[in-house]
Amino acid sequence: MSDAGHTPAKRHMPDGFSDRLRERFGDQFESGDAVLEQHGSSESHYQNMLPDAVIYAERTEDVITLVNMCSDANVPIIPFGAGTSIEGNAAAVSGGISLNMTRMDAIVAVNAEDFDCVVQPGVRREELNQHLRDSGLFFPIDPGANATIGGMASTRASGTNAVRYGTMRDAVLSLRIVTPEGKVIRTARRARKSAAGYDLTRLYVGSEGTLGIIVEITLRLHPIPEAISSAVCSFKSLDGAVDTVVQAIQSGVPLARVEILDALQMRAVNRWSKLDYPEAPTLFFEFHGSEGSVAEQVEIVRMVAEGNGGGEFAWSNLPEERSKLWRARHDAYYAAVNLREGAIGWATDVCVPISRLAECIAETHEDLEASTIPATILGHVGDGNFHVVFSIDPAIPDELEEVARINERLIARALAMDGTCTGEHGIGLGKQGSLVAELGEAVEQMRMIKRAFDPRNILNPGKIFAL
Amino acid sequence: MSDAGHTPAKRHMPDGFSDRLRERFGDQFESGDAVLEQHGSSESHYQNMLPDAVIYAERTEDVITLVNMCSDANVPIIPFGAGTSIEGNAAAVSGGISLNMTRMDAIVAVNAEDFDCVVQPGVRREELNQHLRDSGLFFPIDPGANATIGGMASTRASGTNAVRYGTMRDAVLSLRIVTPEGKVIRTARRARKSAAGYDLTRLYVGSEGTLGIIVEITLRLHPIPEAISSAVCSFKSLDGAVDTVVQAIQSGVPLARVEILDALQMRAVNRWSKLDYPEAPTLFFEFHGSEGSVAEQVEIVRMVAEGNGGGEFAWSNLPEERSKLWRARHDAYYAAVNLREGAIGWATDVCVPISRLAECIAETHEDLEASTIPATILGHVGDGNFHVVFSIDPAIPDELEEVARINERLIARALAMDGTCTGEHGIGLGKQGSLVAELGEAVEQMRMIKRAFDPRNILNPGKIFAL
Repeated sequence: MSDAGHTPAKRHMPDGFSDRLRERFGDQFESGDAVLEQHGSSESHYQNMLPDAVIYAERTEDVITLVNMCSDANVPIIPFGAGTSIEGNAAAVSGGISLNMTRMDAIVAVNAEDFDCVVQPGVRREELNQHLRDSGLFFPIDPGANATIGGMASTRASGTNAVRYGTMRDAVLSLRIVTPEGKVIRTARRARKSAAGYDLTRLYVGSEGTLGIIVEITLRLHPIPEAISSAVCSFKSLDGAVDTVVQAIQSGVPLARVEILDALQMRAVNRWSKLDYPEAPTLFFEFHGSEGSVAEQVEIVRMVAEGNGGGEFAWSNLPEERSKLWRARHDAYYAAVNLREGAIGWATDVCVPISRLAECIAETHEDLEASTIPATILGHVGDGNFHVVFSIDPAIPDELEEVARINERLIARALAMDGTCTGEHGIGLGKQGSLVAELGEAVEQMRMIKRAFDPRNILNPGKIFAL
Repeated sequence: MSDAGHTPAKRHMPDGFSDRLRERFGDQFESGDAVLEQHGSSESHYQNMLPDAVIYAERTEDVITLVNMCSDANVPIIPFGAGTSIEGNAAAVSGGISLNMTRMDAIVAVNAEDFDCVVQPGVRREELNQHLRDSGLFFPIDPGANATIGGMASTRASGTNAVRYGTMRDAVLSLRIVTPEGKVIRTARRARKSAAGYDLTRLYVGSEGTLGIIVEITLRLHPIPEAISSAVCSFKSLDGAVDTVVQAIQSGVPLARVEILDALQMRAVNRWSKLDYPEAPTLFFEFHGSEGSVAEQVEIVRMVAEGNGGGEFAWSNLPEERSKLWRARHDAYYAAVNLREGAIGWATDVCVPISRLAECIAETHEDLEASTIPATILGHVGDGNFHVVFSIDPAIPDELEEVARINERLIARALAMDGTCTGEHGIGLGKQGSLVAELGEAVEQMRMIKRAFDPRNILNPGKIFAL
């Protein structure tokens, strides 16, 4: 199950191709070192792999033109959003053009009566929620970073609200796509459900830019609940915290958010976000509903927590307090990486059936305790999904290898429990061997789709699998 | 947008093929007239299209063997469940083998702690819920008929609970599939979410047996709510009933079920199920939650109904009463068809954004009023999804054509409102032109997948699209 893998060959752009791009795209074309660097690096441990140039798309026609030019010239295109993915999903492994979508950032329509909206791919999740504030609706999917909606659709992102509101798989109603042939298609209408043919929407969601380029997204929204209550609760043991979540879920409590942070992660959060929570295994909760329903949920969860060694609930009921709490949670990755100065981060994520979660986290915790590299456990435990974030000293060459070994053990453990090698980060470069370990021959069906849609392998080549 | 279409040529089985099948499959092979008739007819208006033989699968190995034999011989295989689909989805348009999956009806595992179960495709939804009764869990997806889980996955079925619990798209966690090459693959692990590669699960769900044969399904289950309350409410006008649903949904009430039945449908239900509801536009409701939450939901919905000309709520709180109510709703299709003796049925379904639902239903109702053919409106209005059921006199040749015209107008109306030509019945034979009208060039991407997965076009040929 080694993910060391395979580095595809760099493709060379034909002579004069760069000039033709510059001519067509004017100041939407960039090839300066700093811009290339920005588009070829990642927030994670991957080596920089730079594109040959960057194009800033401003309209669908730009995308069509670029696809046609690159297809003729056999030059890769790597769609690029906020650059916050963490499995090397947007690295330019074969060179080519990084297609920056962030200027396509219009909110095209908000259909409040239908609980949906239409956005361009460069819109960021926080700006969308800002825009929606007066509509009484919100968009729940929230990976830690302020990612673009296009990037979130591409990696099938989720976040803290997924336990109640689902992931990007559930949030995307329809996509407008530029295909590798330069055609524009729409994958579905705006109806809430459909049985009309193959589910192309779900096929493109999570395909990491390898099958088509997203130029518009229709998203499901949700009404802002009448009552929202957030709380933090510390536990004597990690087990007690995990058991609380499992029992609450199994009691049918419709938790809106439930996040675990181990003791070291809490220390990191306190330092990074200037807070003073107890540095013990902790759950962050959020309850949504009517006043009555929230009160009921809270009552059940408090009892469950008490039975598992949980302390007092520290409540955050004012919007500002809640924002501060969840901002701290969203920054947890950066907090963990910065446990050591100048460190580089490596975040991995697995997801297992909830009945195996306690065991999976306990064994992983033991593994981390045995290592000298600071590493935290945190995550969306209501889904059975958790992360390990390592803070790696780049001056110690063995550390990357040690993390790779711990990560491999973690993935093997999750697969043995009938879990997945990634709950929300995607395969990118880093988990290609794990994908095969997880799904075996089914990966060949994925390759068939890729070859059929993109026979010249123009779109984000070298990601998810080797062809 | 004519769906008159294209009838693919009958393929002839090679000499001796039938004997080889009989030899291999023994009494799992049938070719008697009655059995062929049963597998080539439908509950709807399609002409019978008989297979050449029927194989009853008893294990995955049977499916693999049959796929290999048929692939070599270029003989079609049409997977067959309960035979309750209504768009000709299981008709043997090119002849070949109808593969009856109903003997593969084991409930392989119930993982109550994880809210999931693993079943073979021949398990029927009612038997599954029977089996689950003591686990405190239930499987919510309920098309009218007692369909098989395999058939429901194949057509992306939904039903009365979809407004709260989603459709088969949401219910299927993972599939075990026999591919056209005779390989067995599993599309996902049992984790609640995953970002591991392309979403093959969602690709096979709704693919109507054209891409692979489902041999095992892992399903999400839900806890039986603490409190369940059902009610029936009559309205002065169809508009008032529709507006009630739209306003309740827009108020964020988490309705578990909300079904509309027009006055004629209520007459049909009363006759068929021996009931005595007022023969007026009616909503059937169900509320799920804690005692307190159900009481809150009911209070809001009663006020909304009252403001829209709704009458008293007739409550069914005892399990037997509720069963009777929903049995009547599930039998509504048969009730409507049998408005005329000896009639044949034609059920169509569209789904539109909820803001357009009132208008879509009102215009459709006018269209039906102008026709002499008895036709009812009913459906899952919380999703924006409704059906029209026609009761066609086979002795009057023009009636089929008139229904076809009304259906075309209905679909054009739904598409003009950014809706879909089918919310839950699928494309089958009947809506292939509509699919192209709805999704245009995107249908070519579907064809690419079909050609890549099944280059010899062995699996349920002639469905969804012409190749």
